[in-house]
Amino acid sequence: MPELGKVYLVGAGPGAADLITVRGARLLAQADVVLYDALVTPDMLDLCPQAKLISVGKRSGQRSMAQTIINEQLLECATKFKLIVRLKGGDPMLFGRADEELRALEGAGVEVEIVPGITTAVAAAAASKQPLTKRGVARSVAFFTSSTAPDHPEHPALPKTDTLVQYMGGREAAATAQRLLAEGRRPELPVVVVENCSRADERILRLTLSDLAHGLEPGHGPVLVMLGEALAKREHQ
Amino acid sequence: MPELGKVYLVGAGPGAADLITVRGARLLAQADVVLYDALVTPDMLDLCPQAKLISVGKRSGQRSMAQTIINEQLLECATKFKLIVRLKGGDPMLFGRADEELRALEGAGVEVEIVPGITTAVAAAAASKQPLTKRGVARSVAFFTSSTAPDHPEHPALPKTDTLVQYMGGREAAATAQRLLAEGRRPELPVVVVENCSRADERILRLTLSDLAHGLEPGHGPVLVMLGEALAKREHQ
Ligand SMILES: C[S@@+](CC[C@H](N)C(=O)[O-])C[C@H]1O[C@@H](n2cnc3c(N)ncnc32)[C@H](O)[C@@H]1O
Ligand SMILES: C[S@@+](CC[C@H](N)C(=O)[O-])C[C@H]1O[C@@H](n2cnc3c(N)ncnc32)[C@H](O)[C@@H]1O
Repeated sequence: MPELGKVYLVGAGPGAADLITVRGARLLAQADVVLYDALVTPDMLDLCPQAKLISVGKRSGQRSMAQTIINEQLLECATKFKLIVRLKGGDPMLFGRADEELRALEGAGVEVEIVPGITTAVAAAAASKQPLTKRGVARSVAFFTSSTAPDHPEHPALPKTDTLVQYMGGREAAATAQRLLAEGRRPELPVVVVENCSRADERILRLTLSDLAHGLEPGHGPVLVMLGEALAKREHQ
Repeated sequence: MPELGKVYLVGAGPGAADLITVRGARLLAQADVVLYDALVTPDMLDLCPQAKLISVGKRSGQRSMAQTIINEQLLECATKFKLIVRLKGGDPMLFGRADEELRALEGAGVEVEIVPGITTAVAAAAASKQPLTKRGVARSVAFFTSSTAPDHPEHPALPKTDTLVQYMGGREAAATAQRLLAEGRRPELPVVVVENCSRADERILRLTLSDLAHGLEPGHGPVLVMLGEALAKREHQ
């Protein structure tokens, strides 16, 4: 059997090139090949000028590559290269289908190591200066998605936590807000929406639950929706 | 009014010095003064040999400093120094009392910027190679704490999410498990406990919900408890 390379699943963070970890940046600089997502910004690829680059995300109008094809590409890279970086937006273990890549690689006997990344929720909390938990106010936070996959019921229950953060929720946000209102959350509940977090075109919107129930204007980039009392603006903010 | 310095609330990540962000490392290298937590490892302080160091965390047997004293120290530093780094374990906006520091600083007119950090949950997911979400299995994850503060009822409801991650839960974990069993979760539900995540003495325990209900052996460092079907070991793992 030919010797196989090692694959690092590396979290790129929300986009800004300096929000990757020091460990992730070092691996990028050493990589033979980097397979990157649609959510990874071009800036970040400047960190690995020596590496062969393979885009496995959405490209100009095309649908994103099927997960099975990505898995095959990863396996092929493991037979050809020594140090393979699979660069994923945010953190690899949150809404990133890491399980499927891990399974394919491990099943083929490829060594895998995971380097965590800044997930969008904490980057958006930093950008908006709003904590996700707050003493006496919020001691739990949920990260969730409601996008309806074929293998899921259409409306799984919303998480019952003090703070809620909806990933992949631009289009679903109004429905989420309507459901939270129906569950009895107050119409003035603070909502913070961050679009293109940490990028040059970052936008931060502050609204209320009842505003959100009327829908979000369609944006031009990835959107994170955060809801909860911990997101109330401070006096001198 | 004297010119005030700028304070950066920087997430240190779980401990390993190279799990801070590139931005955080750069700020450490430029800082005039660094106020650091008990959870920050000595290694990381090698990144700021030029800075004055102030420990505001637990020290050899002493209780951790009261938050109001930390706030006062931050304000005092803002009058004396130009670039102040307040280095906090994990991410500053999760279970870090950032709100109180932000409030004190903003109230005094001090400029604050926040640099996100790797929160323990994603570091523990990486260390154990277990995703926190998983297609068709887990589309929501909650980070919560049950430690009983005077301003809280003794048993706030547990979050209703597919994956649960308990911070500050070493001693409370058995009670959490008993409550989840009572709520009808299956006794074989996978549990992963990570102690001293990312450090030299990292320990990863795999158990089940019913094991956990019997209690955790007291460990020697910070402990994160993760529960959910997404944490099931894979075939070739
Ligand atoms: C497939 S999920 C990947 C999440 C990623 N693994 C993480 O940890 O952040 C994609 C979703 O993440 C959020 N997202 C990712 N990057 C973002 C950014 N820079 N600004 C706002 N939202 C972002 C959006 O909700 C987007 O729909
Ligand atoms: C006050 S909270 C701070 C959390 C931090 N802000 C974060 O984002 O990870 C402290 C708790 O975080 C968890 N923790 C922090 N560092 C850890 C580590 N290296 N290993 C395991 N758990 C850790 C433990 O549950 C600990 O009780």
